[in-house]
Amino acid sequence: MKARVTVTLKTGVLDPQGRAIQHALEGLGFGGVEGVRQGKLIELDLADGTTAADVEAMCKALLANPVIENYRVELA
Amino acid sequence: MKARVTVTLKTGVLDPQGRAIQHALEGLGFGGVEGVRQGKLIELDLADGTTAADVEAMCKALLANPVIENYRVELA
Repeated sequence: MKARVTVTLKTGVLDPQGRAIQHALEGLGFGGVEGVRQGKLIELDLADGTTAADVEAMCKALLANPVIENYRVELA
Repeated sequence: MKARVTVTLKTGVLDPQGRAIQHALEGLGFGGVEGVRQGKLIELDLADGTTAADVEAMCKALLANPVIENYRVELA
Protein backbone atom coordinates (compact mmCIF):
# COMPACT_ATOMS: atom_id res chain seq x y z
CA MET A 1 0.00 0.00 0.00
CA LYS A 2 1.19 3.50 -0.73
CA ALA A 3 0.41 6.72 1.04
CA ARG A 4 1.20 10.21 -0.12
CA VAL A 5 1.46 12.89 2.53
CA THR A 6 1.65 16.53 1.51
CA VAL A 7 2.78 18.97 4.16
CA THR A 8 2.29 22.69 3.59
CA LEU A 9 2.83 25.73 5.75
CA LYS A 10 -0.33 27.26 7.19
CA THR A 11 -1.51 30.55 5.74
CA GLY A 12 0.23 33.40 7.51
CA VAL A 13 3.36 31.45 8.36
CA LEU A 14 6.38 33.05 6.72
CA ASP A 15 8.00 30.91 4.02
CA PRO A 16 11.53 32.21 3.37
CA GLN A 17 12.31 29.27 1.10
CA GLY A 18 9.31 30.06 -1.09
CA ARG A 19 10.34 33.72 -1.12
CA ALA A 20 13.84 32.77 -2.22
CA ILE A 21 12.42 30.70 -5.08
CA GLN A 22 10.23 33.62 -6.13
CA HIS A 23 13.18 36.00 -6.22
CA ALA A 24 15.29 33.50 -8.10
CA LEU A 25 12.56 33.04 -10.73
CA GLU A 26 12.32 36.82 -11.13
CA GLY A 27 16.10 37.01 -11.45
CA LEU A 28 15.96 34.42 -14.21
CA GLY A 29 13.49 36.58 -16.11
CA PHE A 30 10.26 34.73 -15.36
CA GLY A 31 7.58 37.38 -14.96
CA GLY A 32 4.16 37.04 -13.42
CA VAL A 33 5.16 34.99 -10.40
CA GLU A 34 3.06 36.51 -7.64
CA GLY A 35 3.79 34.08 -4.86
CA VAL A 36 5.59 30.84 -4.11
CA ARG A 37 5.10 28.48 -1.19
CA GLN A 38 7.23 25.41 -0.71
CA GLY A 39 5.97 22.30 1.01
CA LYS A 40 7.00 18.71 1.44
CA LEU A 41 5.83 15.56 -0.23
CA ILE A 42 6.39 12.31 1.62
CA GLU A 43 5.69 9.01 -0.13
CA LEU A 44 5.31 6.05 2.18
CA ASP A 45 5.46 2.39 1.18
CA LEU A 46 3.36 0.61 3.78
CA ALA A 47 2.66 -3.00 4.68
CA ASP A 48 -0.86 -4.14 3.82
CA GLY A 49 -3.19 -3.60 6.71
CA THR A 50 -1.83 -0.18 7.63
CA THR A 51 -4.82 2.10 8.07
CA ALA A 52 -5.40 5.76 7.33
CA ALA A 53 -5.48 6.31 11.10
CA ASP A 54 -1.93 4.93 11.36
CA VAL A 55 -0.71 7.38 8.73
CA GLU A 56 -2.56 10.19 10.49
CA ALA A 57 -0.73 9.26 13.71
CA MET A 58 2.61 9.31 11.84
CA CYS A 59 1.83 12.81 10.59
CA LYS A 60 1.01 14.06 14.07
CA ALA A 61 4.06 12.41 15.65
CA LEU A 62 6.75 13.14 13.09
CA LEU A 63 5.89 14.10 9.53
CA ALA A 64 4.26 17.46 10.14
CA ASN A 65 4.36 20.13 12.81
CA PRO A 66 0.64 20.76 13.39
CA VAL A 67 1.40 24.14 14.98
CA ILE A 68 2.56 25.68 11.72
CA GLU A 69 1.82 23.08 9.05
CA ASN A 70 -1.20 21.50 7.42
CA TYR A 71 -0.99 17.97 6.08
CA ARG A 72 -3.09 15.89 3.76
CA VAL A 73 -3.00 12.11 3.43
CA GLU A 74 -3.91 10.27 0.23
CA LEU A 75 -3.93 6.49 0.24
CA ALA A 76 -3.40 4.61 -3.01
CA MET B 1 -3.81 31.11 -11.67
CA LYS B 2 -2.20 28.51 -9.50
CA ALA B 3 0.30 25.84 -10.40
CA ARG B 4 1.38 22.94 -8.25
CA VAL B 5 4.76 21.42 -9.02
CA THR B 6 5.75 18.15 -7.38
CA VAL B 7 9.43 17.25 -7.54
CA THR B 8 10.49 13.70 -6.67
CA LEU B 9 13.79 11.90 -6.83
CA LYS B 10 14.15 9.48 -9.72
CA THR B 11 14.04 5.77 -8.95
CA GLY B 12 17.49 4.56 -8.01
CA VAL B 13 18.66 7.89 -6.61
CA LEU B 14 19.54 7.53 -2.94
CA ASP B 15 17.25 9.45 -0.60
CA PRO B 16 18.97 9.83 2.79
CA GLN B 17 16.23 12.15 4.04
CA GLY B 18 13.56 9.56 3.29
CA ARG B 19 15.71 6.90 4.96
CA ALA B 20 16.04 9.07 8.07
CA ILE B 21 12.25 9.50 8.21
CA GLN B 22 11.80 5.73 7.89
CA HIS B 23 14.20 5.05 10.77
CA ALA B 24 12.57 7.71 12.91
CA LEU B 25 9.11 6.20 12.32
CA GLU B 26 10.45 2.77 13.29
CA GLY B 27 12.02 4.28 16.40
CA LEU B 28 8.65 5.77 17.32
CA GLY B 29 7.08 2.32 17.13
CA PHE B 30 5.33 2.57 13.77
CA GLY B 31 5.63 -0.85 12.15
CA GLY B 32 5.08 -1.76 8.53
CA VAL B 33 6.87 1.18 6.97
CA GLU B 34 8.71 -0.42 4.06
CA GLY B 35 10.05 2.66 2.37
CA VAL B 36 9.93 6.42 2.47
CA ARG B 37 10.82 8.93 -0.24
CA GLN B 38 10.75 12.65 0.32
CA GLY B 39 10.03 15.12 -2.40
CA LYS B 40 9.16 18.77 -2.76
CA LEU B 41 5.90 20.50 -3.40
CA ILE B 42 6.04 23.99 -4.88
CA GLU B 43 2.87 26.05 -5.15
CA LEU B 44 3.06 28.96 -7.55
CA ASP B 45 0.69 31.88 -7.70
CA LEU B 46 0.88 33.07 -11.29
CA ALA B 47 -0.43 36.02 -13.23
CA ASP B 48 -3.23 35.16 -15.65
CA GLY B 49 -1.84 34.32 -19.04
CA THR B 50 1.07 32.29 -17.76
CA THR B 51 1.11 29.06 -19.73
CA ALA B 52 1.97 25.50 -18.84
CA ALA B 53 5.03 25.90 -21.05
CA ASP B 54 6.22 28.78 -18.84
CA VAL B 55 5.92 26.62 -15.73
CA GLU B 56 7.71 23.79 -17.52
CA ALA B 57 10.55 26.22 -18.30
CA MET B 58 10.70 27.28 -14.63
CA CYS B 59 11.01 23.62 -13.62
CA LYS B 60 13.86 23.02 -16.04
CA ALA B 61 15.68 26.23 -15.09
CA LEU B 62 15.29 26.23 -11.33
CA LEU B 63 12.66 24.15 -9.58
CA ALA B 64 13.94 20.68 -10.40
CA ASN B 65 17.23 19.09 -11.29
CA PRO B 66 16.27 16.96 -14.31
CA VAL B 67 19.39 14.81 -13.91
CA ILE B 68 18.16 13.25 -10.67
CA GLU B 69 14.60 14.47 -10.25
CA ASN B 70 11.24 14.03 -11.92
CA TYR B 71 8.69 16.80 -11.82
CA ARG B 72 5.01 17.06 -12.50
CA VAL B 73 3.05 20.24 -13.14
CA GLU B 74 -0.64 20.61 -12.34
CA LEU B 75 -2.42 23.82 -13.27
CA ALA B 76 -5.51 24.88 -11.34
